[in-house]
Amino acid sequence: MNLEFIKPDEIEARSFAIIEEKLKYKNIPENQKLILKRVIHTTADFDYIENLKFSEHAVEIALQALKNGASIITDTNMALSGIHKKSLHALGGKAYCFMADSDVAEQAKARGITRAMASMEKACDLKGDFIFAIGNAPTALYQLSELIDAKKINPKLIIAVPVGFVNVIESKNLIMQKKINYITAQGNKGGSSVAVAICNALLYQICRMA
Amino acid sequence: MNLEFIKPDEIEARSFAIIEEKLKYKNIPENQKLILKRVIHTTADFDYIENLKFSEHAVEIALQALKNGASIITDTNMALSGIHKKSLHALGGKAYCFMADSDVAEQAKARGITRAMASMEKACDLKGDFIFAIGNAPTALYQLSELIDAKKINPKLIIAVPVGFVNVIESKNLIMQKKINYITAQGNKGGSSVAVAICNALLYQICRMA
Repeated sequence: MNLEFIKPDEIEARSFAIIEEKLKYKNIPENQKLILKRVIHTTADFDYIENLKFSEHAVEIALQALKNGASIITDTNMALSGIHKKSLHALGGKAYCFMADSDVAEQAKARGITRAMASMEKACDLKGDFIFAIGNAPTALYQLSELIDAKKINPKLIIAVPVGFVNVIESKNLIMQKKINYITAQGNKGGSSVAVAICNALLYQICRMA
Repeated sequence: MNLEFIKPDEIEARSFAIIEEKLKYKNIPENQKLILKRVIHTTADFDYIENLKFSEHAVEIALQALKNGASIITDTNMALSGIHKKSLHALGGKAYCFMADSDVAEQAKARGITRAMASMEKACDLKGDFIFAIGNAPTALYQLSELIDAKKINPKLIIAVPVGFVNVIESKNLIMQKKINYITAQGNKGGSSVAVAICNALLYQICRMA
């Protein structure tokens, strides 16, 4: 056996210590650093030191919303699967993804919009406070922007981390220009895993300290 | 609206064209390139041009196995969620993740091993041919190595893409040293999204051409 056997909890602790070492001379607020560290833990990609951007007080507002039972709406079933639902449910929130819903598919087809756009519209019918975790579709961010302008929705936080090369940067810039709380990964990078890492870093700040 | 509206299929095509442009002077076999392109599409990370490594004939053997109805076993429920099950089922295969199974949790606790290790053992009880898609746990790769040596399992392919800083590189090297078909991401990078991208790139090579 060439591998040193280490228990999972200890692997995570060692991994975070390695990441912490790389961040020690960076001037990053502690609650943002907890999120950045989990994103790097998930991707092994230190580019996020420069890429990850937070609106003012984004983390504090998001933590308060989650403590008050805010739910999380995401645009991929992979992200839905990865969000730590035990923590979210303990706080009174739920996790939703409408992408595979038949009514969303019908709306999208009938109106020539993306399912991600129809999913964001469907979210307007829900009651309560919400955080959006967008890890795939730039069109979801575009639609959220329109729905916010039309005062149909007022999210507590938008996690704006689509990945890719087409409309990705533009959609993130659109969110960053609004008076809205956001956490985003500037540039092309992001994805479902990054969206999940940000959600869970927020949840663990509350639930692991409780 | 600052965003040009493009349909999802077209977004994928444009995205792949952008990636293709960056790869055009690289000498990469076509069937490997299809996998590399989907990994970059998923991560927006061109490091995979250098990182992604294939054993000889890995793609051909994996495609033949999938055509013959091989199943896919993964070590995260996020990856299970992302694998294109419609294509896999059409070929006669299934997708499995045993990480949340109560018997796996019990075995792991009783014997002081990780759930990922217990999951790999559970896979030995299944009939048929298998591809393993490991996007999280280095211990899953270590356990697969032991099970292969003990002739308890004979996977058609191991997708060895755990991510992180503790035992990740070592576990990938262990797989690369064996006489086994593998696709791996050398170094620290990888993850559930990368595992899914590789699985789906294989499935799409069969199902989108059929």
